[in-house]
Amino acid sequence: MDYKAIDIQQKLGLFDEQWSPRVIAEMNDYQFKLVKLEGDFVWHDHPDTDEVFLVIKGNLRIDFRNGAVDLAAGEMFVVPKGVEHKPFAEREAEVMLIEPRGVVNTGNAGGERTAENDVWI
Amino acid sequence: MDYKAIDIQQKLGLFDEQWSPRVIAEMNDYQFKLVKLEGDFVWHDHPDTDEVFLVIKGNLRIDFRNGAVDLAAGEMFVVPKGVEHKPFAEREAEVMLIEPRGVVNTGNAGGERTAENDVWI
Repeated sequence: MDYKAIDIQQKLGLFDEQWSPRVIAEMNDYQFKLVKLEGDFVWHDHPDTDEVFLVIKGNLRIDFRNGAVDLAAGEMFVVPKGVEHKPFAEREAEVMLIEPRGVVNTGNAGGERTAENDVWI
Repeated sequence: MDYKAIDIQQKLGLFDEQWSPRVIAEMNDYQFKLVKLEGDFVWHDHPDTDEVFLVIKGNLRIDFRNGAVDLAAGEMFVVPKGVEHKPFAEREAEVMLIEPRGVVNTGNAGGERTAENDVWI
């Protein structure tokens, strides 16, 4: 067994690409991903699963069709399954996503913003 | 829907009791818990699930039968299911646990260190 700590800051230093989640750990069939976000994403939802956003650095707004939540570093939010949402960050934010293995960043929406899935660092 | 951020620091300010996990969020059938640890715990394992430790403040050591991992703030570790482990903190550490709903802190070991489960703050 590999008794090595997973250092979130060290992992964040390994990539620059925005909107492209990198997997750093798995727990059962769930994955912990780091992502750097800036600007606007696309509206989408994940029909089969909740999705956790935990902000590591910066500020993130998640828009919903009838509201929004503002998250600062050290704050988290659980987007319920099937709820349309659109992340937005005025300046680059660093975020941990927690969700089942296989969940794609654009959910049901697809399109050009869809990132390669299951990329480990 | 409740568009309220979950503020980890604010939640940690709501309790002092050590070795007594408090639930702050659920994602599908998984729970996010905060716990304050100091000193030694009991050897135990969770036969049916992995368990994530994410250190928020302080330092945590997790002992295994054939090794150990040292975690500082901002570091995480996934204890695989069925692997005996014993958390230890020389000074109080604040930790986020992520695991399925229903997992008890002492796993298969039971005993007087078993905390009440599913306590929300």
